[in-house]
Amino acid sequence: MTDLLKKNIALNIALNDDEFKRFIKPFRVATVQKKEYLLREGEVCNFEAFVNKGCFKVYHLDDKGVEQVVYFAAENWWITDIDSFIHQTPSQLSIQALENSEILLIQKADKEKLYEDMPKVEKLFRIMTQKTHVALQRRMIDTLSKTADQRYLEFLHRYPEIASRLTNIQIAAYLGVSHEFVSKIRKKLSHS
Amino acid sequence: MTDLLKKNIALNIALNDDEFKRFIKPFRVATVQKKEYLLREGEVCNFEAFVNKGCFKVYHLDDKGVEQVVYFAAENWWITDIDSFIHQTPSQLSIQALENSEILLIQKADKEKLYEDMPKVEKLFRIMTQKTHVALQRRMIDTLSKTADQRYLEFLHRYPEIASRLTNIQIAAYLGVSHEFVSKIRKKLSHS
Repeated sequence: MTDLLKKNIALNIALNDDEFKRFIKPFRVATVQKKEYLLREGEVCNFEAFVNKGCFKVYHLDDKGVEQVVYFAAENWWITDIDSFIHQTPSQLSIQALENSEILLIQKADKEKLYEDMPKVEKLFRIMTQKTHVALQRRMIDTLSKTADQRYLEFLHRYPEIASRLTNIQIAAYLGVSHEFVSKIRKKLSHS
Repeated sequence: MTDLLKKNIALNIALNDDEFKRFIKPFRVATVQKKEYLLREGEVCNFEAFVNKGCFKVYHLDDKGVEQVVYFAAENWWITDIDSFIHQTPSQLSIQALENSEILLIQKADKEKLYEDMPKVEKLFRIMTQKTHVALQRRMIDTLSKTADQRYLEFLHRYPEIASRLTNIQIAAYLGVSHEFVSKIRKKLSHS
């Protein structure tokens, strides 16, 4: 149940078995059905979760009611709205399962306690937040400076495992184009 | 010289005078002339810097040679390309002074040493990276889901001190529109 998380953490810091036991204690396992919401826009986000199995989309609804996907998260990713989580303000984001999923979930108060009890956890989340920030910075640069064709290819290249599990509509909501456009690119690529 | 940085840090963690002295030791002061580059696209970013005075733009040149500003940084902001800094790969970003500026600069190796010598510094940069991430997430959501008019107003609202120091061309490079468009919005707002 916690093997994937253990490996994920080992990429960033070294915890011995006892330390990992203390770290994992406040987490609880939750199953999330396809289409179920972990967070809805307007709610305050009190959790952070590690995806053990499945896939989620983290998105914002614009004024026209169009879904703008900020990121997808499959196995080995963490999900939260860090803005709402830190400031305890209503979230601008919704988090919805795209598949039947399993997550390991920690509440804000428990996470704060972990920081106090285990200073190593500071390092862990410092490094992980840096990585998340790098991913978002790359997405920002792509969004500002690349065509939809280029961004589609970039997405396939960076996240091949996630891309293959998504529909054209879902990828379109990430690229900010119509799903007809994604179908067209996919067709063009399959012929080239 | 280091008063502003001291106050900036105090927002995130408590350091006593001795600890602050140890923290500040590896930093060096540098003056940067208007238009001078701290980092050019393609170089590896080995530093992180705190802006003591002045203003910088952090931008990416797209395939057409158009500047896409990822963020502006004035007093109290930190500048680096975190992607290049962490992975030691060529930067996708350039960092240029928009005014005569003064920064406090720390090299990568010295920062790593600080993490080892002062565990509190882990907490400091964990919290600061979270804040930077929140700012970028807000920018991403705005870019995906708002009109240029709305994004202009949002920018004025969030960063009034910075906005008032920028030209229409600079703001246009942040919003991803022409500077004529920014002039038009500014005129429209001054008449409303």
